Amino acid sequence: MTPTIGVEEVLARCRRAIHPALTSAIDRLAPEIRQIAAYHMGWTDAAGSPVDAPGGKGVRPTVAILGAEAAWADSEVGVPGAVAVELVHNFSLIHDDIIDTDTERHHRPTVWSAFGVGPAIVAGDALQVLAHQVLLEASPDTGPAASSELADATAAMIAGQADDIAFEKRRNVTVEQCTAMSAAKTGALLGCASAIGAILAGAPDATVGALRDYGRHLGLAFQAIDDLLGIWGDPDTTGKPASSDLTLRKKSMPVVSALAAGGAEADELRLLMLGPEDAELPLGPLGPDEVDRARYLVEACGGREWTAVRAKANLDAALGALERVRLSAIPHRDLADLAVYVVEREF
Amino acid sequence: MTPTIGVEEVLARCRRAIHPALTSAIDRLAPEIRQIAAYHMGWTDAAGSPVDAPGGKGVRPTVAILGAEAAWADSEVGVPGAVAVELVHNFSLIHDDIIDTDTERHHRPTVWSAFGVGPAIVAGDALQVLAHQVLLEASPDTGPAASSELADATAAMIAGQADDIAFEKRRNVTVEQCTAMSAAKTGALLGCASAIGAILAGAPDATVGALRDYGRHLGLAFQAIDDLLGIWGDPDTTGKPASSDLTLRKKSMPVVSALAAGGAEADELRLLMLGPEDAELPLGPLGPDEVDRARYLVEACGGREWTAVRAKANLDAALGALERVRLSAIPHRDLADLAVYVVEREF
Repeated sequence: MTPTIGVEEVLARCRRAIHPALTSAIDRLAPEIRQIAAYHMGWTDAAGSPVDAPGGKGVRPTVAILGAEAAWADSEVGVPGAVAVELVHNFSLIHDDIIDTDTERHHRPTVWSAFGVGPAIVAGDALQVLAHQVLLEASPDTGPAASSELADATAAMIAGQADDIAFEKRRNVTVEQCTAMSAAKTGALLGCASAIGAILAGAPDATVGALRDYGRHLGLAFQAIDDLLGIWGDPDTTGKPASSDLTLRKKSMPVVSALAAGGAEADELRLLMLGPEDAELPLGPLGPDEVDRARYLVEACGGREWTAVRAKANLDAALGALERVRLSAIPHRDLADLAVYVVEREF
Repeated sequence: MTPTIGVEEVLARCRRAIHPALTSAIDRLAPEIRQIAAYHMGWTDAAGSPVDAPGGKGVRPTVAILGAEAAWADSEVGVPGAVAVELVHNFSLIHDDIIDTDTERHHRPTVWSAFGVGPAIVAGDALQVLAHQVLLEASPDTGPAASSELADATAAMIAGQADDIAFEKRRNVTVEQCTAMSAAKTGALLGCASAIGAILAGAPDATVGALRDYGRHLGLAFQAIDDLLGIWGDPDTTGKPASSDLTLRKKSMPVVSALAAGGAEADELRLLMLGPEDAELPLGPLGPDEVDRARYLVEACGGREWTAVRAKANLDAALGALERVRLSAIPHRDLADLAVYVVEREF
């Protein structure tokens, strides 16, 4: 059973805890960039008038705050880390939406479709560098190590994004390559988010390492669930068209693991997703009937089951990492509940 | 008289000095990103085969090396700063080319036109974060301050780029706003480049400040010259179409200062560049006859003279800044010669 209400309260508390620091960071931006960032965060409409649009849940800043608390520090110590990670996450969303030509996020036009590609590139760039300014100014003692942790995680995330783009043109993507891509694209920043509060708190390496591993496994579990939702998720809850990952022929974990199963159904799926051997990739979107058939085939080849098992195994590994060191009890429980919550959403 | 040969030797020496560290930084990138970066730097063609295409002169890394030497340190001390500044400069070029939809740089296809917009965004992002990794790993003592200096300069550069984009839609841009934009877009990173070697050397604040001011004024002089070349430059030398800034109706220093002059010719120029009062900006490109007339009007209104005077005044201020502290004599001379060289190119 997921302790949903407790977790949503924790998420809301952490969002409130970082809000003043996040707004004052964004207030440092040039007016045109600030307007775009405020729109993207759901604080204003495209013209700059205040609104209260639904934004992200704030999983990353929440684990940053909880990480500081788990390392026996005050939540305030984790705030610059939480803000910095949230800024990097949003920089990546703004740029990814351009790259994927996605026109909607949280049921609103994406930044590039509201403001243009140029301003969206610039706004993402500005958020990336702002994250480092926030950390380097946070503390002369622990800020540089936090900034290094974030730079390494950002570099890994970008490399994962580059792999994801490169996969579109490749026929053969192994399960290992797909997992490595997810670890980089989603796991690295969540690992950093979990570790950064403890780094700012000056916690011992073992504590930082346990929290980092928690976050990395949480990221892999999160990505596995996202991949399942991209095929079997309810459009009303995901905010995306049904089976959008299949329409776009995305080489997500369920598809890649299904293709690896071998046999007649995997061959049929390969032909459907990748066309004949000599087809030039990427191909155009799948039609609705093809999507239905592909969805059936992915499940028949075991791709759904494989991915669900991966999610569960990474959830267990995340929870196990928290047991390696002695953490403060309440944030330890909150981190564990959060991991369960993330993995059990909609299931 | 410009000591051209001496300066070009200094530039070549500094390019050689940073090359091993620059290539090993770029070797850390994911293969797809490394290929793009190597292409952009002029080291390979788009398929990845080695070539020796002309790249930039390397003014920024050169002032970083000379800054370390001027602060009485070994040139090696400045290398991580030079590499980091060069990475940020190239990140900005790759993203700016997407924003401006420029298809050629140094007579080769720009990154986005050779590899696509998505990979170009990702490659730029990767170079930005790599710069901070290089600095934070360079030295636990002075690396964080160098990283802060670079983050602040990058933030200013991005804000300047945002202003530059915003100017396209504005009828009224004052000379002060145009100067502030240039100071941010070009001056901040050159100021950082000049200061960063001395920061890594642990030089006193007065030395760092003098070198930073030298670089900022050099950047303003550089931008003024660039603006003159964008209207009166020889296409064979600039590598851009003749008067490309006028064709694109750019609110560069010569144009903005000419518009501020007032009188019938300024009114005619305003109508030509901006259309009637109720025109929706930005307008399409100017035709060849309009460009010829605009070029005449900018000069008639004093925009060429004003910009040339600005370039000279900033050159003098850059040279003056170097006199405020005691610097090592040979790099001091090289920095001064470099400033003169930059301002006197093609004039």
